[in-house]
Amino acid sequence: MRKFTSEISEEDFGKKVTLYGWIHEVRDLGGLVFVVLRDREGFAQITLPKKKVKQEVFERAKNVRRESVVKVVGEVKKEERAPNGFEIIPEEFEVLNEADAPLPLDVTEKVPAELDTRLDHRFLDLRKHRVFAIFRVRSEVLNATREFFHERGFIEVNTPKIVSTATEGGTELFPITYFEREAFLNQSPQLYKQTLMAAGFDRVFEIGPIFRAEEHNTVRHLNEATSIDIEVSFTDHNGVMKYLEELIVYIHERVVENCEKYLNWLNVKLEVPEKPFERITYDEALEIVSRKEEIPWGEDFSTPALKVLAEHMQGYYFITDWPTESKPFYAMPYENRKEICKSFDLMKGWLELASGAQRIHKYDLLVERIKAQGLDPESFGFYLEAFRYGMPPHAGWGLGVERLLMAMLDLKNIREAVLFPRDRQRLVP
Amino acid sequence: MRKFTSEISEEDFGKKVTLYGWIHEVRDLGGLVFVVLRDREGFAQITLPKKKVKQEVFERAKNVRRESVVKVVGEVKKEERAPNGFEIIPEEFEVLNEADAPLPLDVTEKVPAELDTRLDHRFLDLRKHRVFAIFRVRSEVLNATREFFHERGFIEVNTPKIVSTATEGGTELFPITYFEREAFLNQSPQLYKQTLMAAGFDRVFEIGPIFRAEEHNTVRHLNEATSIDIEVSFTDHNGVMKYLEELIVYIHERVVENCEKYLNWLNVKLEVPEKPFERITYDEALEIVSRKEEIPWGEDFSTPALKVLAEHMQGYYFITDWPTESKPFYAMPYENRKEICKSFDLMKGWLELASGAQRIHKYDLLVERIKAQGLDPESFGFYLEAFRYGMPPHAGWGLGVERLLMAMLDLKNIREAVLFPRDRQRLVP
Repeated sequence: MRKFTSEISEEDFGKKVTLYGWIHEVRDLGGLVFVVLRDREGFAQITLPKKKVKQEVFERAKNVRRESVVKVVGEVKKEERAPNGFEIIPEEFEVLNEADAPLPLDVTEKVPAELDTRLDHRFLDLRKHRVFAIFRVRSEVLNATREFFHERGFIEVNTPKIVSTATEGGTELFPITYFEREAFLNQSPQLYKQTLMAAGFDRVFEIGPIFRAEEHNTVRHLNEATSIDIEVSFTDHNGVMKYLEELIVYIHERVVENCEKYLNWLNVKLEVPEKPFERITYDEALEIVSRKEEIPWGEDFSTPALKVLAEHMQGYYFITDWPTESKPFYAMPYENRKEICKSFDLMKGWLELASGAQRIHKYDLLVERIKAQGLDPESFGFYLEAFRYGMPPHAGWGLGVERLLMAMLDLKNIREAVLFPRDRQRLVP
Repeated sequence: MRKFTSEISEEDFGKKVTLYGWIHEVRDLGGLVFVVLRDREGFAQITLPKKKVKQEVFERAKNVRRESVVKVVGEVKKEERAPNGFEIIPEEFEVLNEADAPLPLDVTEKVPAELDTRLDHRFLDLRKHRVFAIFRVRSEVLNATREFFHERGFIEVNTPKIVSTATEGGTELFPITYFEREAFLNQSPQLYKQTLMAAGFDRVFEIGPIFRAEEHNTVRHLNEATSIDIEVSFTDHNGVMKYLEELIVYIHERVVENCEKYLNWLNVKLEVPEKPFERITYDEALEIVSRKEEIPWGEDFSTPALKVLAEHMQGYYFITDWPTESKPFYAMPYENRKEICKSFDLMKGWLELASGAQRIHKYDLLVERIKAQGLDPESFGFYLEAFRYGMPPHAGWGLGVERLLMAMLDLKNIREAVLFPRDRQRLVP
């Protein structure tokens, strides 16, 4: 029976197992050859004493090139000197696909490589357990997120990525040729998830790609990213902030529970944050920041400003009550102080992970805000129609999967959190 | 406490509940007004005897326009003449957002509408329970799929949608302007999920958008669709066909279990299919078809040909062993009969739902097949590199979510299975 290396336990001692994997290392001691087989879950030592294994098996193992793919069938023997306390004495050793040499990237990490080189040969880079572990955690994050929302009566939706309208004005969009027309790649499901509130869906979530033609290359921007989006009717910004902090806690719990090994590979000690997260208003944040950085009221915080703020804040926290002019047109202004709105960002340190708000649900106010931001209501045809025939009050947010992984796993570059990142320069692989 | 209309039961009789929803109908009998409130889960009768409710509440309910959004707080009373056996006597009746009149689309379905009109005003169309039900089932299908794969050790991945290489040659791709370069929208995660096999991920799945610039408008084609893709190492076409039929059965079980109400709204009697699904080779299918339709050996089946075949086949079935030349370059030819390959389609009736194969994992054979199909190996740089340094044997498939929903729910047009479909003409909403 086929097993992952990590599935071999004392119960297998004396039994025959089948392993598939890659040749991590071969040590040839003459009459004795040690092969380290690697699969995604761990390593196994294959021991070949010349006198105890078939000659063809011995020869194959001795000569196999590193990173070749093999099938090994053999008996598991207790061996305390082996890294996992066992070894396999193979009766079969089949090379399923021989690797060329030299390798363009060292999988054992004895030779460190630049990120660009790693990404150029990403399939080899991902064979490193430390790198693979990020995507094992990512998969768990996605699964936990879906469980969380399905259990709470949310409907999972897929909204179009090819669109005719810009969500927040025309900037930062990738143009696409849609037959004889111009279209764009959607930068956010915003207009569609709001439309679904008008459709009576009550609560929706989507996990999907978003596309932003941002010119600048930074360690926290991607041109194609994965976003977790929700929209909820009959609630306000406080209601969806509660969902957000509960989700973050749930994700941490699930990752701690199910990814211990992978967190160890990453050398990350993950702690489950406590609810509720700290809340700080924009005005309060501005006051802290202004001791060191000059930011005029109404403007977004610069990176240096956020780094000042981060020195004062522990763990995850919300910045609330943003200036209306600093947020998109659909954010709901406070009734009694229209220059600020019911908007929030979820932060960890200086990193913005999510952004959300109670939305405007009244047609007239929405048109007014669209115009105030210098946009043309005419270009929001289908979206605006949804506000005329029974749009409920609603709120929502978008959370960047890669940003969340950066925060959880303390990654220094957002590209580490994507299998095949897209940035200003990178379109391949 | 807020409840959905469907959550009100005998236990609530005599208690106060809060309902949010849309005005489905108002019947004014003078001294008595009946309002039917609709939410996504059902209906509730709001009864307003003039003498028993506050005057302002009575006036508001009497005058509220259809499809307006309301909040109703009131006592639940047993009332056998009401559709659900209860009525609400409101003490609060707040109009949260008044709908304009006339409505561009009738939500009560008394006036039937063309699909195009329905899609133009999709937010109103989706308020119909029969239409909403499709997306409730869709959400369940997605959730069941993820559960199925997470339980089986698959890693959920997201591969890029902006790519530089065409998967299967240059046709049917939407071009995009990626800064100063040309790029494309990916038509399938094929090359990336195979690359992840070389990365040692062993088993991956992805649920994400795929984009095809197909010129023809049919009832079963979309230009943007959602695809469930898997790729598995150390197995062959039979191994992944087994996953596919198990998944289909699991999805049916879960939908039958959790979506009874929605299936009733759709008037669909869903039966769980039995495993294993029937398997028929291409040659056998061709023989059946050729009694009525002339298809030369090696060609794909036309729609009329598939309709002939469908008359002979019950439920879900596989067509296997396709001519190598009819399938993409990465399909593995049989060793002993190279003109056919280890490829399969999953069918229901005349509808193709999924397509898969054991893939070629040997570099030389792959290059040979790329050339044989008139493609240039040079344009497959990063993909081919992955085959040189330890690519395991592997197999996989892609399953169209919308096609599956068509098959399960007996939908006549694939556009019914998408919230906001994209086709040759439609880019809005």
